[in-house]
Amino acid sequence: MIKVGIVGGTGYTGVELLRLLALHPEVTITAITSRAEAGSAVADMFPSLRGHINLCFSDPATAPLQDCDLVFFATPNGVAMKQAGELLEVGVRVIDLAADFRIKDVAEWEKWYGMSHASPELVEEAVYGLPEVNRQAIRQARLVANPGCYPTAVQLGFLPLLEAGCVASDQLIADSKSGVSGAGRKAETHILFAESSDNFKAYGVAGHRHLPEIRQGLTTMAGASVGLTFVPHLTPMIRGIHATLYATITREEDFQSLYERRYATEPFVDVMPAQSHPDTRSVRASNICRIAVHRPQGRNVLVILSVIDNLVKGAAGQAVQNMNLMFGFDECLGLSLVPVLP
Amino acid sequence: MIKVGIVGGTGYTGVELLRLLALHPEVTITAITSRAEAGSAVADMFPSLRGHINLCFSDPATAPLQDCDLVFFATPNGVAMKQAGELLEVGVRVIDLAADFRIKDVAEWEKWYGMSHASPELVEEAVYGLPEVNRQAIRQARLVANPGCYPTAVQLGFLPLLEAGCVASDQLIADSKSGVSGAGRKAETHILFAESSDNFKAYGVAGHRHLPEIRQGLTTMAGASVGLTFVPHLTPMIRGIHATLYATITREEDFQSLYERRYATEPFVDVMPAQSHPDTRSVRASNICRIAVHRPQGRNVLVILSVIDNLVKGAAGQAVQNMNLMFGFDECLGLSLVPVLP
Amino acid sequence: MIKVGIVGGTGYTGVELLRLLALHPEVTITAITSRAEAGSAVADMFPSLRGHINLCFSDPATAPLQDCDLVFFATPNGVAMKQAGELLEVGVRVIDLAADFRIKDVAEWEKWYGMSHASPELVEEAVYGLPEVNRQAIRQARLVANPGCYPTAVQLGFLPLLEAGCVASDQLIADSKSGVSGAGRKAETHILFAESSDNFKAYGVAGHRHLPEIRQGLTTMAGASVGLTFVPHLTPMIRGIHATLYATITREEDFQSLYERRYATEPFVDVMPAQSHPDTRSVRASNICRIAVHRPQGRNVLVILSVIDNLVKGAAGQAVQNMNLMFGFDECLGLSLVPVLP
Amino acid sequence: MIKVGIVGGTGYTGVELLRLLALHPEVTITAITSRAEAGSAVADMFPSLRGHINLCFSDPATAPLQDCDLVFFATPNGVAMKQAGELLEVGVRVIDLAADFRIKDVAEWEKWYGMSHASPELVEEAVYGLPEVNRQAIRQARLVANPGCYPTAVQLGFLPLLEAGCVASDQLIADSKSGVSGAGRKAETHILFAESSDNFKAYGVAGHRHLPEIRQGLTTMAGASVGLTFVPHLTPMIRGIHATLYATITREEDFQSLYERRYATEPFVDVMPAQSHPDTRSVRASNICRIAVHRPQGRNVLVILSVIDNLVKGAAGQAVQNMNLMFGFDECLGLSLVPVLP
Repeated sequence: MIKVGIVGGTGYTGVELLRLLALHPEVTITAITSRAEAGSAVADMFPSLRGHINLCFSDPATAPLQDCDLVFFATPNGVAMKQAGELLEVGVRVIDLAADFRIKDVAEWEKWYGMSHASPELVEEAVYGLPEVNRQAIRQARLVANPGCYPTAVQLGFLPLLEAGCVASDQLIADSKSGVSGAGRKAETHILFAESSDNFKAYGVAGHRHLPEIRQGLTTMAGASVGLTFVPHLTPMIRGIHATLYATITREEDFQSLYERRYATEPFVDVMPAQSHPDTRSVRASNICRIAVHRPQGRNVLVILSVIDNLVKGAAGQAVQNMNLMFGFDECLGLSLVPVLP
Repeated sequence: MIKVGIVGGTGYTGVELLRLLALHPEVTITAITSRAEAGSAVADMFPSLRGHINLCFSDPATAPLQDCDLVFFATPNGVAMKQAGELLEVGVRVIDLAADFRIKDVAEWEKWYGMSHASPELVEEAVYGLPEVNRQAIRQARLVANPGCYPTAVQLGFLPLLEAGCVASDQLIADSKSGVSGAGRKAETHILFAESSDNFKAYGVAGHRHLPEIRQGLTTMAGASVGLTFVPHLTPMIRGIHATLYATITREEDFQSLYERRYATEPFVDVMPAQSHPDTRSVRASNICRIAVHRPQGRNVLVILSVIDNLVKGAAGQAVQNMNLMFGFDECLGLSLVPVLP
Repeated sequence: MIKVGIVGGTGYTGVELLRLLALHPEVTITAITSRAEAGSAVADMFPSLRGHINLCFSDPATAPLQDCDLVFFATPNGVAMKQAGELLEVGVRVIDLAADFRIKDVAEWEKWYGMSHASPELVEEAVYGLPEVNRQAIRQARLVANPGCYPTAVQLGFLPLLEAGCVASDQLIADSKSGVSGAGRKAETHILFAESSDNFKAYGVAGHRHLPEIRQGLTTMAGASVGLTFVPHLTPMIRGIHATLYATITREEDFQSLYERRYATEPFVDVMPAQSHPDTRSVRASNICRIAVHRPQGRNVLVILSVIDNLVKGAAGQAVQNMNLMFGFDECLGLSLVPVLP
Repeated sequence: MIKVGIVGGTGYTGVELLRLLALHPEVTITAITSRAEAGSAVADMFPSLRGHINLCFSDPATAPLQDCDLVFFATPNGVAMKQAGELLEVGVRVIDLAADFRIKDVAEWEKWYGMSHASPELVEEAVYGLPEVNRQAIRQARLVANPGCYPTAVQLGFLPLLEAGCVASDQLIADSKSGVSGAGRKAETHILFAESSDNFKAYGVAGHRHLPEIRQGLTTMAGASVGLTFVPHLTPMIRGIHATLYATITREEDFQSLYERRYATEPFVDVMPAQSHPDTRSVRASNICRIAVHRPQGRNVLVILSVIDNLVKGAAGQAVQNMNLMFGFDECLGLSLVPVLP
């Protein structure tokens, strides 16, 4: 049984962490912080947690985070980089669900996130928490940078192709669609129900913060710099990411088999049978990534479909998976949720 | 560990049963029948179950149902009344999620359901599976009639008032709103996305099949015949029932306290603090019924808000709760799901 | 051709006014004000208006409102009461789409709206803009208080019964459901897509600002004080109000005929055939109110279903209808829109 | 004033035609046929049309179609090819909203549509009704093949690039998303609300019937055969198509200017300012196609965003536009609808 703290428990990744951790048999949650809500019961803000979470939000300044074995940061970008250091110093391990430690090139990070980085030395140490790529390093890590939602779906989709070196890595396209919860629990006009319901649009076509994160991951997989066009879209659903990936074949392979072999032992990646069209609800509220491989009309373009729940495999679930690895638990512990359908 | 069969596994109550039973530690599913889908894998129809349910649908004629300890009927109305008898005879216990055994007055049932009843004698034996009312009888039952979704929400909402006899039982109003999954997984035009999305309507105002079921339950609670106006509405959401109940006060009480006392030991009924407005998502994918008690403007009319997930407490979850009671398991076993929010 | 100004053009009632007025053959829009957006093109904020509205937002302080024949206030509550007076003084007629002039009892208004009223004398003069009740007065009015959305649906639903005096006016219930646009275009958490989609809840059960407005109207119709329980609900759709009204019969009538007669000459009230269930999309984007009359199970309770588009008959469309009356145009001019279905 | 008939008035393209034609000043609708609904009032099936359409459905066998100036076929594929010929013979002009006459290569058509063609000679005569390409031919046409919804959005999006010959025409990608009404008003399980709401998926990746139609159009524009990967997706909204198009630059141009020049005089194509992200609701219920041109990160890939309402510019609106051209009316007559937002 480990003691866990959560910094920033009022957003969607925070409440999703609580949903998962509430039933995790090896975890005791000892603190959930929120400056704005300090003193009020967590279950008053999120009645879905009544009977499962009996804690109150505590002030970040006084919360007993240093007594934890692990602290999750479910905060906006720029918070963990200021606070993780002192926790690590006293032996608390840290998983950051925001972007502070994801990009190794600090200058690049500063350009995309519009602030100077408070802990460049921790960026170097941090392990990028994509278990399908970095499982061993995660086990040993003090500090894990939990991947973004789009980056998880896109990287898992391209991974077998780039490792195998059988597509043109300079012409990759990731047409990605996200549910609205991906924008967070912030009071902003464009994600109001009356704005985003019965509506569909691209956004950030000129450049989205997840682009450098994805590019960094794909470059490592390919062993060479990649050319990626990444177009995110806002989709009128609560949860789910659907990445439609396009790659030009440079060497013939049995692509279906390539995917099946690469992910044969991965507990949370499901390669669907040929001709499948995974829908986002098939992974809703679960930690699964489902992938289908297509080669339409026998042309030289592969179409890979990759779906996840942005709040689970794209955020809180993957964080719990990383926690399980870091503390030597069964990797699936607390994550054997059956997707909610319909 | 008990052996369980499911007759009719292709509808929403069937797939929801599978979601719940897949993780139930005391259950082995040995057969799921579907005439139309016999021989095909359950997880091919419902990819959300890949890795959780490895069975194929079997033909109802040859499925080993008689070897089960318990068989659930997740079939259309009119099936269980023909097949339950022979299972009971060989010692298999039965829970019917359809309406065949819910209404004690067979003539009334035949009027509303438009067919003659094949097993009137079983109607008499069947126990109405609302644990908050019939817990002891359910434990002993061979045959349980699992309540309808609207009836669960409405009866739990009115129960404390009618037992206490403090409202006018001849002037009850139940304005009820259901998500579209309540209409089942049937190819019908009016429940198409393009018909029922961004839309709201009442239906069945002249008379809905759940009216006699609710009236029967309320009559028992009140110890007298009741007058009920029941108006169901189709709501553009997948899951959830929200019953808004109106009752005229005939005797003053501390109504908040009345509800809290009545449900103090009920594991799946949550009386919210005064002034609460439970939303349906606060119970999404869980077996909870949340209730709030209001007395607007200090007038003589009580407004009770009662929400459930129609597929869980309104169907499959309540069926599992009944199963737990029938077989002496902890009543909450396999049902400690945290609602999925957002 | 009249010159029209709009104060506050960035909310939903404002943009809906623009949609309607853009095609109105007797209207020239000469100014749309917004302090925050002054100088930017209206069609930059609302691309749906590209090619239809070529104006920029102007600063309220300098906009040529005094040259208009009519000014609409599509502002938050509390603005029109401060600015209408000086426009009226120079001969500009005013329609307020907010609540400033709706309630004759100023003390009551101040209690519900939490501010002191800046122009009590104008409250007295203002005509409540429900044409089905006040058509003649509206024609002459300098200042029209455009009704709220819930009040329009509920009052038109109860009107024939209360005028005829055939129901118990002290036991009225209005169970009302609104689309999310009814909450306005404000960046607030509870109306985010991820909060209000796939969800349903009541709100303001203890008391909602539309209660005194509805009560005032019903009292006038009944010629006596009324007892009303009003419960609003937030529904996951963009537009639409569905009011389900309950009244206890005190004198027998042919109720269907009563409604048909009362509304026989009303261009924007459609009494549906008996047994109908009007859905909100049947009036989407149009100025129609559709009503159905039910008497379930032959009991003594009438159930009236009344649907409108909250932004049209519940706001901007009714405002244009009032404008047509005030300036002697055909009452339907610019309002012959066919509802958008699906 | 012309006399117009509609064959097949019970689907979404049919009811949308009725919505548009009801207010068209030069059209009298003289017949709407439906075998199944013959004799019943159109407005009984579609209450949104009450007060606007007073016709009953008539039997196709007896409807006075031969007296019409124009007949629209809003029927399933395979109907118009059998019935158009005899209407043309007696001088009735025809617009087919289905696919019977869209593809010039009859063998190709028969492969994709799975039936043999009843009127190959009419295929040759038919004019493909995309006014932005074929305006002059449409004016003279007896028989117009109204384009599909995806084909309209994709072709208008690629048109300027292919005409200019500045992209690699063998590497085109059209990642396309459609609202659920695009699947028609058919009782099929996969488009039920509870299946397609809060969900997103690709479909038909191996091959979709709109692929050969799009390819034919693009080939004509490019003057050479094209290589196209077309992936359609089902999106949880009622109306709207969003095509995200990818093309590799082969010759530098001012691409924004290229689009603006090409569409400068087109009444229904709106090239948005650089950096725009048109959303589908910005064209909801209107005949506009909005396009934005992006070149992300200055790479050699263009991203074109093209949005339409699938039922208007993608079906019934474009059909009315074609009718206006065929009969010498102002091309915009009856189509100056302001999009419905929110």
